[in-house]
Amino acid sequence: MNFNINEAIEVLERTPTTLDYFLYGISNGWLARNEGEGTWNAKEVIEHLIEGEKTNWIPRLEFILQEGESKPFPPFDRFSHLSDSEKKSIEEKLHEFKTIRTKNIEKLKTLIEPELHLELTGLHPEFGVVKVRELISTWVAHDLTHIAQIVRVMAKRYREDVGPWVEYLGILKK
Amino acid sequence: MNFNINEAIEVLERTPTTLDYFLYGISNGWLARNEGEGTWNAKEVIEHLIEGEKTNWIPRLEFILQEGESKPFPPFDRFSHLSDSEKKSIEEKLHEFKTIRTKNIEKLKTLIEPELHLELTGLHPEFGVVKVRELISTWVAHDLTHIAQIVRVMAKRYREDVGPWVEYLGILKK
Repeated sequence: MNFNINEAIEVLERTPTTLDYFLYGISNGWLARNEGEGTWNAKEVIEHLIEGEKTNWIPRLEFILQEGESKPFPPFDRFSHLSDSEKKSIEEKLHEFKTIRTKNIEKLKTLIEPELHLELTGLHPEFGVVKVRELISTWVAHDLTHIAQIVRVMAKRYREDVGPWVEYLGILKK
Repeated sequence: MNFNINEAIEVLERTPTTLDYFLYGISNGWLARNEGEGTWNAKEVIEHLIEGEKTNWIPRLEFILQEGESKPFPPFDRFSHLSDSEKKSIEEKLHEFKTIRTKNIEKLKTLIEPELHLELTGLHPEFGVVKVRELISTWVAHDLTHIAQIVRVMAKRYREDVGPWVEYLGILKK
């Protein structure tokens, strides 16, 4: 096991700032791309991350602490952010993400006493028994997945433009 | 063609700052990981990016402008940074990367008059004829590739820790 709550928090607190530095003020040409039908552009990824802060990580953590394995987590819709046809800019979305993430990290620190709570278990509707430390690890890996996704989508914009160098750039073939 | 030199520069100037925000002060547990023998950890990736600034992008651009297709680019060793057994910290490396990248963006802006130079051609030792705009596009896509690599390597650290959620996290299976 590599999990350590302080190291997990190091990533959780860096994600919004990193994305802010990367995307703030960048041209729409980079932001508007997705990977084809049914895939997300950078703004939709940020909206998905915000949705996770609202309905997934902390709510499920609280649910485990209250209910244990007595009932499964209430289901949530991983695509619900797509039905919001919000007109906010990506800069506003990045700010919203940073604000809610900061609050949630504070909540995490208040809720979880590492010595006592990391091995507690809850009931995932699909996977069955899951642990608090698995949920927090997943929160971290989920951040990293979506940073990688944003970067990959942007790289693919230059798939044709790199000419023969496409050979050396594995990311463009995914 | 999606290439536009101003948009390319938007990415080139964001890469060092983004990596700095992401990695500065993070625990060694995150930095020391690689993907197995012959693969790179985060610091080695930054060293590779610095090496590219010194021996690849701008030198090749200058070579095309001077030589055209008259002789092929001098070869360089993509792995040369690994033989430097430098003792600098990742923070020093990030700073070095930011400094040399800033200078190279200035050089790029001085060297290239978009109306005149983007379609100029040089001779790649392996690929044959390549264009200035393909070289600059590759510089951008190469940045994005290595950001994605750093993030992927970090995510894999939690491969076992996420428990059954591995199912939803494609990045952990790469």
